[in-house]
Amino acid sequence: MKVNGQPQRTIWPTADNTAVEIIDQTKLPHEFVTVRLESMRDAERAIRDMQVRGAPLIGVTAAYGVALSMRHHASDAALRASCDMLLAARPTAVNLRWGVERMRALLAPLAVEQRADAAWHQAAVIAEEDVQINRAIGLHGCDLIRAIYQRTKSTVNILTHCNAGWLATVDWGTALAPIYAAIAENIPLHVWVDETRPRNQGASLTAWELGQHGVAHTVIVDNAGGHLMQHGLVDMVIVGTDRVTARGDVCNKIGTYLKALAARDNGVPFYVALPSPTIDWTLQDGVQEIPIEERAAAEVTHISGLADDGKIYTVRVTPPDSPVANYGFDVTPARLVTALITERGVVHAPDEAKLRAAFAAS
Amino acid sequence: MKVNGQPQRTIWPTADNTAVEIIDQTKLPHEFVTVRLESMRDAERAIRDMQVRGAPLIGVTAAYGVALSMRHHASDAALRASCDMLLAARPTAVNLRWGVERMRALLAPLAVEQRADAAWHQAAVIAEEDVQINRAIGLHGCDLIRAIYQRTKSTVNILTHCNAGWLATVDWGTALAPIYAAIAENIPLHVWVDETRPRNQGASLTAWELGQHGVAHTVIVDNAGGHLMQHGLVDMVIVGTDRVTARGDVCNKIGTYLKALAARDNGVPFYVALPSPTIDWTLQDGVQEIPIEERAAAEVTHISGLADDGKIYTVRVTPPDSPVANYGFDVTPARLVTALITERGVVHAPDEAKLRAAFAAS
Repeated sequence: MKVNGQPQRTIWPTADNTAVEIIDQTKLPHEFVTVRLESMRDAERAIRDMQVRGAPLIGVTAAYGVALSMRHHASDAALRASCDMLLAARPTAVNLRWGVERMRALLAPLAVEQRADAAWHQAAVIAEEDVQINRAIGLHGCDLIRAIYQRTKSTVNILTHCNAGWLATVDWGTALAPIYAAIAENIPLHVWVDETRPRNQGASLTAWELGQHGVAHTVIVDNAGGHLMQHGLVDMVIVGTDRVTARGDVCNKIGTYLKALAARDNGVPFYVALPSPTIDWTLQDGVQEIPIEERAAAEVTHISGLADDGKIYTVRVTPPDSPVANYGFDVTPARLVTALITERGVVHAPDEAKLRAAFAAS
Repeated sequence: MKVNGQPQRTIWPTADNTAVEIIDQTKLPHEFVTVRLESMRDAERAIRDMQVRGAPLIGVTAAYGVALSMRHHASDAALRASCDMLLAARPTAVNLRWGVERMRALLAPLAVEQRADAAWHQAAVIAEEDVQINRAIGLHGCDLIRAIYQRTKSTVNILTHCNAGWLATVDWGTALAPIYAAIAENIPLHVWVDETRPRNQGASLTAWELGQHGVAHTVIVDNAGGHLMQHGLVDMVIVGTDRVTARGDVCNKIGTYLKALAARDNGVPFYVALPSPTIDWTLQDGVQEIPIEERAAAEVTHISGLADDGKIYTVRVTPPDSPVANYGFDVTPARLVTALITERGVVHAPDEAKLRAAFAAS
């Protein structure tokens, strides 16, 4: 998608193929800064410090991290050490493990002298696969947006929560891919951007990427979506997801469930966009079976932003003695999900039979 | 309620009855500062600058503002000028108008030399009425908390949104009055405090007042309540309200409706505490008939807090070019309200017939 009018990805190899560059997402929305990763340790640090975030982008960055390490030392011991160090950068990130293990599986059987080139090629393939999957999600989701526009003949209002945009992937995003596809078709639309406390990925990342691409949008606090839906100001909700169960329960950023309830109460369709590997076929009841990560209290007690003096400050917003709980995700039961939008098509009113039929999974 | 272990109200006359003192609520939760109001202009400024907020407290402060003005000039012209200036401090505050008009109605027929003493006495009466109404709400609501405790024999978990505590009134509060009453009875309870974006009245005021009074509580982001209810961690919700329609629709701080939906979806009772004059008998359908105030974008784009250097900073959290919408309130339909808790008792499953029967209103 675009930044300052120019096409941009979140990660890309340098022209001489000796390094990769990324956007330092910790600086957004206040500053657009790119960072050059020249070594596995650079990649590991970028993941750990959350300069890159979003499951697909973490996986691709890790793959490039393995590839960068092979440039310097391609022995079995070096491969093992690199993979282990990258895996430790964010231990609970499923895509990080997936990216690293996919590289390890390819490289381990190869001769040491073949590994550097093979690794670089494979990292690029993984990145390109992500782009193609998201592009396909975008085209399928665009059909849903277009159908609303053809019915209403007026601007389609879409609400989204958190950031499942191109910044979370290599390009296009998941929840925002249908929006970018619709913009490419000149369908008039407007996006309500949930702030997404406590980490504010909506206010800082989604608002920024939509603004850079020229997509009409309005930032709202997470509390506002129900009111908007009561007053007919939302035509559809599209969110991303971290994990979907075999029957279609959706684990996503905390607060998603509240928007799904409001959508149901007001007859607004609620869509979830995902690459099909996000489905965890081992789980059924998401509320009961998915453990919800509790994150640091400081995400709630403190907030960072840009002061008038041009500097970034982190300020406390709660009383110093008040305890805080910080649940990272919630689960939206499948009964509240209008459809799942995947790279293989749209699954309406998802349940296990439909999901297994659509994806022919084990 | 208590601050630093001492009983405290939000507004009180000085010992020599020449002025009133208030808590500067703009400094909370970072600093506890009291301010002396010696003139009508001091009172007007305290209301305008939101050093006092909360409908009942604004009304009482305005009453004292009229009383302070009568100390200096008690002519008809002075009375009219004082009332007009106070009314302009926050033009949309219903209780401000109510407090001022009640004073005007009492004072206008009196001789000029009687007005100063009568006004001071009347302001004190209005303040004391507020305390007694809230205390009655507290006792009625406490019956509901006690019933849960008697059934579960374990800590009662209560979720609240925004600040309808003693800081919004003279003492006790509305939504928090039942909690303070239950604490006085030694019923074990714990309060989930919604942060309440964008103005963070939960994180800054509710958390502070509960902490000062020694009530166990945990601050959460507004997104978290649904997840807590799905996991059985909330026994009841109690919120305040700015306006209730004749059929029981509840207008309250933006985001209340989302909590009511989650409560309904999880079988959690949803209570609304209010003084009965909050009922607006001229309205029926709250969603359609209550105009929702749109407030300044800066409340969403910027946030204030305490930095490590001990200073308060205001920082921007959104991209500079992203538009913002800031709806102050939403409406929870009566169908989602388990009961209204008023000073005259509890009205279960409210509708117009029940409300008119309970309050014998016109």
